[in-house]
Amino acid sequence: MSSDLGRRHLLQAGAALGGGLVGWSARDLTHDRGAEPADAAPAPAYGGEREPFHGRHQSGIVTPPQAHALVLGLDLRSGVDRAGLARMMRLLSDDVARLSQGRPALADTLGELAVLPARLTATFGFGPRVVAELVPPRHRFDFAELPDFATDRLRPQWGQTDLVVQLCADDPVTLAHTRRVLLRDARVFARVRWTQEGFRRARGAEPAGTTMRNLMGQVDGTVNLSERDRDHDRLLWSDLPGLGGGTFLVLRRIAMDLVDWESLSRSTREHTIGRRLSDGAPLTGGAEHDAPDPHAVDDRGLPVLDRAAHVLRAQPQKPDERFLRRPYNYTRDEADPALAPDGVEAGLLFVAFAADPVAQFVPVQQRLAEQDRLNEWVTTIGSGVWAVPGGCSPEDGDYVGRELLGTPAL
Amino acid sequence: MSSDLGRRHLLQAGAALGGGLVGWSARDLTHDRGAEPADAAPAPAYGGEREPFHGRHQSGIVTPPQAHALVLGLDLRSGVDRAGLARMMRLLSDDVARLSQGRPALADTLGELAVLPARLTATFGFGPRVVAELVPPRHRFDFAELPDFATDRLRPQWGQTDLVVQLCADDPVTLAHTRRVLLRDARVFARVRWTQEGFRRARGAEPAGTTMRNLMGQVDGTVNLSERDRDHDRLLWSDLPGLGGGTFLVLRRIAMDLVDWESLSRSTREHTIGRRLSDGAPLTGGAEHDAPDPHAVDDRGLPVLDRAAHVLRAQPQKPDERFLRRPYNYTRDEADPALAPDGVEAGLLFVAFAADPVAQFVPVQQRLAEQDRLNEWVTTIGSGVWAVPGGCSPEDGDYVGRELLGTPAL
Ligand code: HEM
Ligand code: HEM
Repeated sequence: MSSDLGRRHLLQAGAALGGGLVGWSARDLTHDRGAEPADAAPAPAYGGEREPFHGRHQSGIVTPPQAHALVLGLDLRSGVDRAGLARMMRLLSDDVARLSQGRPALADTLGELAVLPARLTATFGFGPRVVAELVPPRHRFDFAELPDFATDRLRPQWGQTDLVVQLCADDPVTLAHTRRVLLRDARVFARVRWTQEGFRRARGAEPAGTTMRNLMGQVDGTVNLSERDRDHDRLLWSDLPGLGGGTFLVLRRIAMDLVDWESLSRSTREHTIGRRLSDGAPLTGGAEHDAPDPHAVDDRGLPVLDRAAHVLRAQPQKPDERFLRRPYNYTRDEADPALAPDGVEAGLLFVAFAADPVAQFVPVQQRLAEQDRLNEWVTTIGSGVWAVPGGCSPEDGDYVGRELLGTPAL
Repeated sequence: MSSDLGRRHLLQAGAALGGGLVGWSARDLTHDRGAEPADAAPAPAYGGEREPFHGRHQSGIVTPPQAHALVLGLDLRSGVDRAGLARMMRLLSDDVARLSQGRPALADTLGELAVLPARLTATFGFGPRVVAELVPPRHRFDFAELPDFATDRLRPQWGQTDLVVQLCADDPVTLAHTRRVLLRDARVFARVRWTQEGFRRARGAEPAGTTMRNLMGQVDGTVNLSERDRDHDRLLWSDLPGLGGGTFLVLRRIAMDLVDWESLSRSTREHTIGRRLSDGAPLTGGAEHDAPDPHAVDDRGLPVLDRAAHVLRAQPQKPDERFLRRPYNYTRDEADPALAPDGVEAGLLFVAFAADPVAQFVPVQQRLAEQDRLNEWVTTIGSGVWAVPGGCSPEDGDYVGRELLGTPAL
């Protein structure tokens, strides 16, 4: 998480306080205060914090990443047409509009589990088949699945789906409840093809604004598209007809060979990325947020950075080769033995957002597939891309995807 | 979590501060403080908090429940004898002694993931076969698997194992790293039969001391064996030879039929348990921590509580029918369709600790199997019991299980 996200996080936290403490008695709030050392006053419980659902953009994109994610890949049932998809999006939009504000969904009889949104967000996207078949011609655009990259070893089980729903929250109980509510409403329209669960450090375990670490132990997320960047809006938000305020979501499921990785020397591991393990600073010096110097040489005149180091290969070669990364760690017990000799698959749910994935994401992924020292220890086993419509308004009957689908208020 | 656990939690939190903030720069700690509203000062990050590993008892038993759990069931590889088991326990004890204090394990090359213990605990237990075959005769005791209960629908996949390792922490990255380290060291001695992941509300989402809710939406954990109870030590800690300071861990994997459950009226759901959904107070009146009155009648003279309500059936009929419950919620995507018509299995990892499970736990479970309104919506699909040795000392070469196994310092 970059520093400005950290700051925004704190601002929103402040703004959300007050309204959110539904259902807690004064006894709870003052509970055993006497026992605390004076310098360790606990923060107000954050379960009541809310992220806005309505707005020009969907939530869960520029939202400072929450601790937990559940990404659902769904395929529409046969026979579901544009009107059916619209009805489903209306139901799901309404559910999230409520749940994200700490209110039970309409048919939510387990409402006790709905009172703590913990910054719940939902981000909905439509796959290429939906755009080709259900979006009306005037809004239809050229939208293909991602190309195959040389290093991909894709498992169909984690492949492209018609729909994606990225749910994020700082609390796992909230996520479990939200998934139930949404899947119940989606059920007659779509079936779940896969579920990908991700996690970062728990909220509050580290100071807000600390960049996350992935399961290889690296500081991951230092250089990222930032809201302070002049080109932020242009690179993030689409202006395709029907997709205004929207973007594209790329998801790559990348397994890590941690058994081999952890047997390497520290120096080999650092040179694989080009940054230090301890604090993420470039091997050419400075601190985490300083840029690596590709021309730096050591005492013997040899380049410090390997030209195939991940950060040099991933760096934009053209100004537009940039996107917003918003990844999560994952582990999976029922693992493919080829990927997890020790029985536990571990990796990264690489989530990226871009206004034009073909121009911004594909060239970078292409370059990494051609050469990247990291490739020896990571394998992409799942891949998909979805068009993410803009957000919806609080007006009655509006829902995510209405503009793109050209369907009426419902 | 009962109130006294909440208090202890806060005390330990205070005690752990200071030493734990390894590796954070002053910049991190003061990060963007300017942006905070005055009434929302964040608590110090809790990632550095440590639970003691050494002591008379193992950690993870009376420890206030952390937000996340990973329970591993392992079977010893054939040919592993008492000395082999001792070597494994020495390695694992040393790993946890370090990791729980925020220090990398000995062969831990991903040490960056080890600096935030976030109250990491590990609780090790030995199954009946290990006690029968590897514990020396002078320490051997009568120890059988749990009997079959009429309502059980056990899946061998979640069955009794030779060893159990209950890992708990407030942070999921810490748990993922700890599992890796432990499984690598356990590998030549044992193989993983199952992994059961559990969660509660995230740390800090609710005020400390709030009783957890399970996925049926109920307040779960109100009445529990408390350290303030006169009989606490006698009911919790074993005094069997070799097992001093130890206890027994019972794990029941209980799937919930949430599809049917959520279709019931609120009143039906409340009468199933005998307590209110909103706040866990008895249906006979009072607040959460008040006892239900089994004799209370309504205006028409009818009993308020159903005699088959879960709390009445679960209540001790003899003073010793009590134990420490320490459950976690779980969900599982790769679910048995019989258990999860909507594709997601949800339930409770019911974990209980007792000095004598046959005298304390079995009669209660027996009574529930005979009659309990809850049975219509819950199904026990996994079951196991393990002897949990006392804790180990920081003395060089000591390890969990040494006394019971009668093996030397290593
Ligand atoms: C498991 C797989 C991956 C791992 C472990 C990984 C790790 C890292 C690390 C540690 C950094 C340096 C810190 C930072 O700036 O965030 C980094 C930077 C970066 N990575 Fe990756 N990465 C992975 C996959 C990818 C993929 C698939 C892409 C895009 C196709 C990508 C694009 C980038 C970019 C654009 C940067 C910033 C480069 C710069 O301008 O300095 N990474 N990655
Ligand atoms: C998914 C299965 C279960 C659910 C959803 C459940 C739920 C609950 C709830 C909501 C309460 C009332 C609040 C409280 O005091 O904690 C309770 C109490 C209790 N439950 Fe369960 N329970 C389950 C399984 C079990 C099992 C398997 C046992 C033991 C064999 C058990 C033993 C108890 C006990 C001893 C109490 C306290 C009773 C009292 O003295 O008031 N429960 N349970």
